[in-house]
Amino acid sequence: VCASRREHAEHPVLLGYDTSTFMAPTVTQIAELRQAVEEQNNSSGESGKLGTGEDRTRVEMELLIMKVQGDVCHELERLDGEGQFLVDCWKREEGGGGITCVMQNGKVFEKAGVNVSVVHGKLPPAAAAQMRSRGHTLKAGPDGLLPFVAMGVSSVIHPLNPHVPTMHFNYRYFEIQQIDGTKDWWFGGGSDLTPCYLYPDDASHFHKTLQSAMKPHSPHLYPHFKKWCDDYFVNTHRGNERRGIGGIFFDDYCPEGESGQTALSLVRSLTNAIIPAYSPIVERRMGITYSDLEWEWQQLRRGRYVEFNLVHDRGTKFGLMTPGSRTESILMSLPLTARWEYKHEPPAGSREAELLEVLRQPRELIW
Amino acid sequence: VCASRREHAEHPVLLGYDTSTFMAPTVTQIAELRQAVEEQNNSSGESGKLGTGEDRTRVEMELLIMKVQGDVCHELERLDGEGQFLVDCWKREEGGGGITCVMQNGKVFEKAGVNVSVVHGKLPPAAAAQMRSRGHTLKAGPDGLLPFVAMGVSSVIHPLNPHVPTMHFNYRYFEIQQIDGTKDWWFGGGSDLTPCYLYPDDASHFHKTLQSAMKPHSPHLYPHFKKWCDDYFVNTHRGNERRGIGGIFFDDYCPEGESGQTALSLVRSLTNAIIPAYSPIVERRMGITYSDLEWEWQQLRRGRYVEFNLVHDRGTKFGLMTPGSRTESILMSLPLTARWEYKHEPPAGSREAELLEVLRQPRELIW
Repeated sequence: VCASRREHAEHPVLLGYDTSTFMAPTVTQIAELRQAVEEQNNSSGESGKLGTGEDRTRVEMELLIMKVQGDVCHELERLDGEGQFLVDCWKREEGGGGITCVMQNGKVFEKAGVNVSVVHGKLPPAAAAQMRSRGHTLKAGPDGLLPFVAMGVSSVIHPLNPHVPTMHFNYRYFEIQQIDGTKDWWFGGGSDLTPCYLYPDDASHFHKTLQSAMKPHSPHLYPHFKKWCDDYFVNTHRGNERRGIGGIFFDDYCPEGESGQTALSLVRSLTNAIIPAYSPIVERRMGITYSDLEWEWQQLRRGRYVEFNLVHDRGTKFGLMTPGSRTESILMSLPLTARWEYKHEPPAGSREAELLEVLRQPRELIW
Repeated sequence: VCASRREHAEHPVLLGYDTSTFMAPTVTQIAELRQAVEEQNNSSGESGKLGTGEDRTRVEMELLIMKVQGDVCHELERLDGEGQFLVDCWKREEGGGGITCVMQNGKVFEKAGVNVSVVHGKLPPAAAAQMRSRGHTLKAGPDGLLPFVAMGVSSVIHPLNPHVPTMHFNYRYFEIQQIDGTKDWWFGGGSDLTPCYLYPDDASHFHKTLQSAMKPHSPHLYPHFKKWCDDYFVNTHRGNERRGIGGIFFDDYCPEGESGQTALSLVRSLTNAIIPAYSPIVERRMGITYSDLEWEWQQLRRGRYVEFNLVHDRGTKFGLMTPGSRTESILMSLPLTARWEYKHEPPAGSREAELLEVLRQPRELIW
């Protein structure tokens, strides 16, 4: 059960974020977020100007992921016209909690989940090192543990119509505090598209929207993040078949010599691009009539989606193995239904085979 | 495509196994198996008596798994009345191969797979050590590698009717050759039942049949193997919910001071118990009419089956990560269809809840 929103209602705006659009109260109490902002205001030297340290980044990231959840849920409800999100607030015994929003059996969306989590606690150094690809030795306290905060928004949207692609996005922030008071922080995330049928216009629109979102910040990183996505969402056990037609993916993002605020501005821009990248595709494909055969092909592709998520996805595996994690929130990414046939192979020259070709050999250039 | 069975037809019986009941020619050429038997006959001192060394065990195990595959496929075809097994013979580039038999869309069985594989090659010592739970240092050759043979039969049978349980079995044999000529060998395997609805009579029949099969050999091991099964097929990420109502499971079976022949006799007895343990259950439940709700519950249980196989099952994970393995044969264990609903919980007191209760707290005594 979610807490009362009374506290939010009195002063709905913090750091420019209108909390009245959120699906639920923030995980960290809004008064605590407000206090962290004010403390930093006071210590930043010039009155009236916010500091740019990690506290501000952490507070703003929590507001941002709440905003993204609200925006995406409201947009999906608008597109669907009938389906509504169920909102579940949950606490994690070891510290923190989350808000899971799920729509099931909508008119357009068969199953869509948008999950926010904000967790904190103490990690053994080995676990902390495992969380990042670029490892370095972290200075733990006398108890050998490292205080950490991890937060993020993640979503998988499975539409009913096989001509409307599945979309996934996830944006997350980690902070680890060392004994000397310094903080190690980084962002990760990405957005990617998984169609059952190839529509080059859709692929082009999706990739270009992400590229544009990165332009004002780190245009040179776009090709790198695009390739990272192609290289990550791979069913290696299926002859390196990609899960979908890609997008962007990144991890361990902590640009040298730059502040958390600068890094956050890229993430903010990418989250702002989620709806513009996906919504027009849904609108132009949701009315297409489809055959039983097309539906069955979608079910088989859903089977591959399940395989990637359960066999390869690091976030899912890490989540399922972490004591105290909330399995229902992690596995909301699975489709409502899926299918496995022995040695299914679509006929040569079919639209189904056309998709497989692109999944087996992703296109390197922008569409 | 499977090789011609001409060679088998001329002398169909070897070591008492009638190869004409096999689904395909053996993976190792029958002439080679025959020669290994004859060589051991000659070297065993007394003429006319077979030796009891590993060569005989390896040859007999290959014949046994072929017999099990044939027996189970024929019995399932008899029970189904309509569905027939498709037979696929495949070679492994690195050495060996297999025979995959799959029935899809039968009248009684929605999807059933029975797979034989016989593979050999050379392993790095770390990989060899990882294959057994009871590790000890193995003496590798000058190339640092250990020649190995691994063979087994494995099967998953998913019936259409939610009142007929899914059954899984797997029996396997490993042999690793050390530089000093000695061989390290062991057996593993088990049979277990996954119903959607609890029928105590079925559970009792299944467990008792396995217990009886072990009685003449290692009766003291039965409680141990039963508990191993309850402890292995667990969805730890679902609050330790068991996949099914258990059976037996064992690994690394190499009884101290006993020959491969003695160990094989237990495995032979357990494979002989597969049909008697399962077939009567299918016959008494396959005619029950079922509702849409019961079918939907089956689909949700299938989702859990997928979760166990892809997230936890060591054989599946090891297989999918091994280069050159045949994914279609490994993943034939997945059901034709599966379903995931967010936070599904059956109503208290329902037959669905009754099953969950047993899965969450397996019964320790024999039924």
